[in-house]
Amino acid sequence: MFADLSPKSRVLVGRLKVFFDTHIYPNEERHHHEMAEMRREGNPWRPVPVVEELKVIAKSQGLWNMFLPHPYEGQGGISNLDYAPLCEIMGRVSWSGEVFNCSAPDTGNMETIERYGTSEQKKTWLEPLLDGKIRSAFLMTEPAVASSDATNIQCSIRREGDEYVINGRKWYSSGAGSSSCKIFIVMGKTDVTAARHSQQSMVLVPRDTPGVTVIRPLSVLGYDDAPHGHMEVLLENVRVPVSNVLLGEGRGFEIAQGRLGPGRIHHCMRSIGAAERALEMMCDRLQSRVAFGKPLSEQSVWHERIAESRCMIDQARLLTFNAAWKMDTVGNKDAKAEIAMIKVVAPNVSCKVVDWAIQAFGAAGVSQDFWLAEAYAHQRTVRLVDGPDEVHRNAIAKLELAKRAKLSMAKPA
Amino acid sequence: MFADLSPKSRVLVGRLKVFFDTHIYPNEERHHHEMAEMRREGNPWRPVPVVEELKVIAKSQGLWNMFLPHPYEGQGGISNLDYAPLCEIMGRVSWSGEVFNCSAPDTGNMETIERYGTSEQKKTWLEPLLDGKIRSAFLMTEPAVASSDATNIQCSIRREGDEYVINGRKWYSSGAGSSSCKIFIVMGKTDVTAARHSQQSMVLVPRDTPGVTVIRPLSVLGYDDAPHGHMEVLLENVRVPVSNVLLGEGRGFEIAQGRLGPGRIHHCMRSIGAAERALEMMCDRLQSRVAFGKPLSEQSVWHERIAESRCMIDQARLLTFNAAWKMDTVGNKDAKAEIAMIKVVAPNVSCKVVDWAIQAFGAAGVSQDFWLAEAYAHQRTVRLVDGPDEVHRNAIAKLELAKRAKLSMAKPA
Amino acid sequence: MFADLSPKSRVLVGRLKVFFDTHIYPNEERHHHEMAEMRREGNPWRPVPVVEELKVIAKSQGLWNMFLPHPYEGQGGISNLDYAPLCEIMGRVSWSGEVFNCSAPDTGNMETIERYGTSEQKKTWLEPLLDGKIRSAFLMTEPAVASSDATNIQCSIRREGDEYVINGRKWYSSGAGSSSCKIFIVMGKTDVTAARHSQQSMVLVPRDTPGVTVIRPLSVLGYDDAPHGHMEVLLENVRVPVSNVLLGEGRGFEIAQGRLGPGRIHHCMRSIGAAERALEMMCDRLQSRVAFGKPLSEQSVWHERIAESRCMIDQARLLTFNAAWKMDTVGNKDAKAEIAMIKVVAPNVSCKVVDWAIQAFGAAGVSQDFWLAEAYAHQRTVRLVDGPDEVHRNAIAKLELAKRAKLSMAKPA
Amino acid sequence: MFADLSPKSRVLVGRLKVFFDTHIYPNEERHHHEMAEMRREGNPWRPVPVVEELKVIAKSQGLWNMFLPHPYEGQGGISNLDYAPLCEIMGRVSWSGEVFNCSAPDTGNMETIERYGTSEQKKTWLEPLLDGKIRSAFLMTEPAVASSDATNIQCSIRREGDEYVINGRKWYSSGAGSSSCKIFIVMGKTDVTAARHSQQSMVLVPRDTPGVTVIRPLSVLGYDDAPHGHMEVLLENVRVPVSNVLLGEGRGFEIAQGRLGPGRIHHCMRSIGAAERALEMMCDRLQSRVAFGKPLSEQSVWHERIAESRCMIDQARLLTFNAAWKMDTVGNKDAKAEIAMIKVVAPNVSCKVVDWAIQAFGAAGVSQDFWLAEAYAHQRTVRLVDGPDEVHRNAIAKLELAKRAKLSMAKPA
Repeated sequence: MFADLSPKSRVLVGRLKVFFDTHIYPNEERHHHEMAEMRREGNPWRPVPVVEELKVIAKSQGLWNMFLPHPYEGQGGISNLDYAPLCEIMGRVSWSGEVFNCSAPDTGNMETIERYGTSEQKKTWLEPLLDGKIRSAFLMTEPAVASSDATNIQCSIRREGDEYVINGRKWYSSGAGSSSCKIFIVMGKTDVTAARHSQQSMVLVPRDTPGVTVIRPLSVLGYDDAPHGHMEVLLENVRVPVSNVLLGEGRGFEIAQGRLGPGRIHHCMRSIGAAERALEMMCDRLQSRVAFGKPLSEQSVWHERIAESRCMIDQARLLTFNAAWKMDTVGNKDAKAEIAMIKVVAPNVSCKVVDWAIQAFGAAGVSQDFWLAEAYAHQRTVRLVDGPDEVHRNAIAKLELAKRAKLSMAKPA
Repeated sequence: MFADLSPKSRVLVGRLKVFFDTHIYPNEERHHHEMAEMRREGNPWRPVPVVEELKVIAKSQGLWNMFLPHPYEGQGGISNLDYAPLCEIMGRVSWSGEVFNCSAPDTGNMETIERYGTSEQKKTWLEPLLDGKIRSAFLMTEPAVASSDATNIQCSIRREGDEYVINGRKWYSSGAGSSSCKIFIVMGKTDVTAARHSQQSMVLVPRDTPGVTVIRPLSVLGYDDAPHGHMEVLLENVRVPVSNVLLGEGRGFEIAQGRLGPGRIHHCMRSIGAAERALEMMCDRLQSRVAFGKPLSEQSVWHERIAESRCMIDQARLLTFNAAWKMDTVGNKDAKAEIAMIKVVAPNVSCKVVDWAIQAFGAAGVSQDFWLAEAYAHQRTVRLVDGPDEVHRNAIAKLELAKRAKLSMAKPA
Repeated sequence: MFADLSPKSRVLVGRLKVFFDTHIYPNEERHHHEMAEMRREGNPWRPVPVVEELKVIAKSQGLWNMFLPHPYEGQGGISNLDYAPLCEIMGRVSWSGEVFNCSAPDTGNMETIERYGTSEQKKTWLEPLLDGKIRSAFLMTEPAVASSDATNIQCSIRREGDEYVINGRKWYSSGAGSSSCKIFIVMGKTDVTAARHSQQSMVLVPRDTPGVTVIRPLSVLGYDDAPHGHMEVLLENVRVPVSNVLLGEGRGFEIAQGRLGPGRIHHCMRSIGAAERALEMMCDRLQSRVAFGKPLSEQSVWHERIAESRCMIDQARLLTFNAAWKMDTVGNKDAKAEIAMIKVVAPNVSCKVVDWAIQAFGAAGVSQDFWLAEAYAHQRTVRLVDGPDEVHRNAIAKLELAKRAKLSMAKPA
Repeated sequence: MFADLSPKSRVLVGRLKVFFDTHIYPNEERHHHEMAEMRREGNPWRPVPVVEELKVIAKSQGLWNMFLPHPYEGQGGISNLDYAPLCEIMGRVSWSGEVFNCSAPDTGNMETIERYGTSEQKKTWLEPLLDGKIRSAFLMTEPAVASSDATNIQCSIRREGDEYVINGRKWYSSGAGSSSCKIFIVMGKTDVTAARHSQQSMVLVPRDTPGVTVIRPLSVLGYDDAPHGHMEVLLENVRVPVSNVLLGEGRGFEIAQGRLGPGRIHHCMRSIGAAERALEMMCDRLQSRVAFGKPLSEQSVWHERIAESRCMIDQARLLTFNAAWKMDTVGNKDAKAEIAMIKVVAPNVSCKVVDWAIQAFGAAGVSQDFWLAEAYAHQRTVRLVDGPDEVHRNAIAKLELAKRAKLSMAKPA
């Protein structure tokens, strides 16, 4: 029935909420301290103890790998629509996704290998990933070019006999900071003379391959997002066997198209969760603080903003559910307009709601004492991840204009 | 399934689209001319011939009274969710609703009598209304007070023996302009000493009752919206039998609450239809006009606006469907937050999209030659009809704050 | 001194305010009635008695032709900066400009003839115009093309011996409705083979020339703006002597550039006056109406909107003063960025403030009983007049980008 | 003349620009490295070598203490209007203000002591401050209350004989992190039984007084803003002589009102400088990057945003100049509406422009490699500093409403 969760999803949502109340929220401070401690020790790029502990519990409760739409050896098999409300909850605490083995970019990487990998590749990389034993990174964006246009990619993947020789500089390679990160999916060009969308390939590059240098972490608005991080990676004459290619030479663009749908919708679901939490915090703060003789909640513009927040969040959620349902029913490719729409809408909503919540908190809102500052930085970044808003808006507009152009050609003169 | 039309609705949508293609769009110019002709003759407050003709056809095709959620003697029985996409289509041509006996304020009035009227009242007024023989008006808003707060209403309904004596001045009484309008539902106060929400009553007042004077039409942004219009009505010692009260003395506020849900959602559905049409016109114009060497559609900000329009419309539609579904499943009262949200969202979306479409059309956009100018005026007005945005935003915010306050009280100290 | 009126302007502002208090505001209702009366009589396209009466008084007080920056035979000679606050006041009452012979499009037309006309042309047309004896129209926009790109203009002005033969269809020819309108400035193409910006010419066409047909009034959002109006005009083999050309054949584009600056800034000044009046009305209404137990002014979002209105208006005024000062000091051409900026900013500000004022008034805000509805329609139209916002924003952006491009080329590698 | 710099200001602007070209921009990277180095060494709360070097040069060139409107022993004496464009330039590089001894919060503190201090206080604290030998902090905001309402302040300043005993917890005490910071101005309550605005006093508290503990730095969106920082400070039985009070007991609110004007306008000027730099970077990036076959600057929405940025920046600058001129001519108190307006407008403009610039840069925009990420965090914070937007908007609205209420009372009935 409309907008109603399926029985399966309802059960999982209930269990996940209990898990959050029992294990996640009560451990937010511990996570904060463990990260601070690792920083003081000079190396925050390691697994966080509390996360490792909770992974065991989550796994034992079956709250594990829920992101995976096609089942793999008994895991996953939850549709995008059923996963949406689960992923939303994970958006409330930035580090919680990993507890359930549902964190970016691993989810996207696992799904990619599951869909496009050989059995050998799955055995070697997908299984330890699904098991939460190792982490992964996706190396696409390059500092030297506007990477939102994938045809701009410069990284060279040259075949020499049975090997590919890879040279390039990547950055914002999320996840590559972690000491557990063992495998990179690298996008580059195998044939610059091929047709525009057949030049790219994706290859699996183990992180410890000679020639791979993780140079430095990039920060996002002052945060380094350790332990996973966003790294600059230099690839110099990196050699991997040709069997490491995914799907086939020249099919990198095709994989990118298929991969980006799920990755984007997960970001959006989490953004909605973040917006929801920010709205709750805003309401609570406004009702607990007094100025000029009455609670802030009764003053000035706050009713307007609370109402606008509720309207925006509910709309973004429905739009995301709708996109998930489309992906489930007609496939990621035919849901491209819907995916592009949520990618524009969801992070803009969360940015706005978090911004208002910060105003409600005053200086406290930008401090390290509340989740809002970190959420503000992160949600702002989501507007760039997987392509800036502008690229998605252009895509939506072109589809819309094409629809009308087709109609007007179909009309008799 | 999510966001999918029911089989029943799908069939009706298909038939309604055919009707529009066959009978409505091809007659837009005729309607324009007939109205112009009646104006030239000095009296546009009469039934429009083309509408009367089409009513017969629509009725014969069973496209009639689809707005009515509870069936009455074999008519209606279509849920709000199933009616939503039908009503959206009617929003594309402002006069089309009447063709299907689905135009405001008659729909709201009919539903009110159906829900709260006696069999006698139904026999006398509901049946000719459902038959499309007469029209009706709803007299609530008063020029002297901020009528968005229903307790401000000044109109006096004093009981004298078996009669009510009514005195008051109403305005923006939509529908009261038409010569077919035979019955008014009047809201006033029967007991100013009662509890705040038990002072109001609603009574049925035949238009030809002595003491009723329809003073003048009010315009909305330059339009008089003939033939139905928005009238100023003076009630001076108007006497009706006490049996004309709806539901019971002192229960006017209760009816208003129940009545406003459907009225509001119909407005919203039509606003979405208007936005959709404006977007289509915008795309078509931009692709057909050239400036500075290329089609407008390839220039500057238009991709952005088309994409934003599509995102806003799809979100507003999903939010409206969701409200309709709530009304169908938990009732109008428990869907009040959802109804308030769409009442804020939908007309603001349509105003924005029509505004952009006008920019795409240039001067033509504000002229009488295109539907946009009229839509711009009308959609702007919808932001005031049934309460201005501000009142609804406050209501949403209060519900949200109350939800949080309840939670925080429930927590142990 | 910064933002301070010059002594000259201060004196004129003082006198103009007195005139408004004495003669304009007290006559708003009379004007309304006289227009209504003329409409009832079937011809609103005539001079309005109250305006004609007040013109005599204004002229006798020297409040006449203040718009004219270069003095002509003892008239005008007030700089743009000094005129700005005067014009702003006129923006408060839409028909007031004509009282001071300062109404569009006559001001732009007079300035054009004053700057580019021959003494003969000035004698014949400028003098009666400056005297307020006749009115004028400017025929540029065409229904068939995107006229914001002046090179799209299709109207043909073909030379045959000592005459021009003009053929074309114009619309939104403002002012052409009035029975006093005696002269048109027509823009068309004298040579379609010339360089892009040398194809156009402007010629003076007396309205009673054979072949001129004023076809119909166009409305703007439901208003016909009688008595001046916005007309569709057909030109069929209209013949005028070649001496009627302004400045010279092929120089129409040049005149358009010179003409548009003053016309645009006058619109902007008036928009600011309209916004200021709307803000006053909003404050007054909010302080006089009570809902839910307290004045509207103390509720919800109104403080926010009043503050935003004040900020926007003050900024728009300073920007307009700045543009006026630039026009006075470096000339209209070098002030093109400043003029483009106010053309975007001012009407958007007035649209927004009027929109909020309407929300404060509720239904009354869109009715004929208050000035707001008319202002809403008119200010919306200003966003299209002399080119839609989009065209001006593009112009500003190109200037900005060129400035940076020049700098970066100047830098050593 | 309107909007024109005075000859004095023009000369200073010229010299300051040369200084920036010669000494500031070329040292941005050095500053970055020196800060990074100090962090690596574990203590970034020390003077930065490059700043100390440049201070000597700036002082020798007379580019020193330009912020001080009233001259003190031969220093300062530059009006707010003349200082405005200088301060704007300093807004382009966040650490540059200190080079000219013009950085917050020292400027506000120095002006406060200059205006309200005794000669003794000036000798002891103002002179080393003006000399750039020491730094200062202003302790007002408290974590426990909504500090935008100054009457909420809880810090207790109790008199005991010839001493004040101070107890309280302050936070976001900007500048208190630096090892050079030697003096605090502390706001607290000397008499909670006095009239609402006479309870507060300000006292000078040397940082090394027993009982003062600088607990920790607060971050703003991930930045600690070392070396000055924003600190949490605990005051436990801190004793200072009563002669340390500024202006007199119970006059703290009065000082706050006088102090905030200049502090706010300096923030606004710097925000405008930041916006201007962001716009330049946006234009340059868009012209240098290519995607989908053409420079980003020719695509989609960028013309719109560049134009909007230019319009917003120019308006904010004019509004700020106007406020400065008002402060110079009618005094800070009567310029309160103007100051409140710029405090709302300027940082919102800079936030918006920086936000767009980040979109133009893609991921690079949020990284540590470009100034934009830091500017984004800082400009966001300016919307909270010296009171959140909401408080200022309320103040503006109240002034506006009062103005109208007064007028309507003045009218005869």
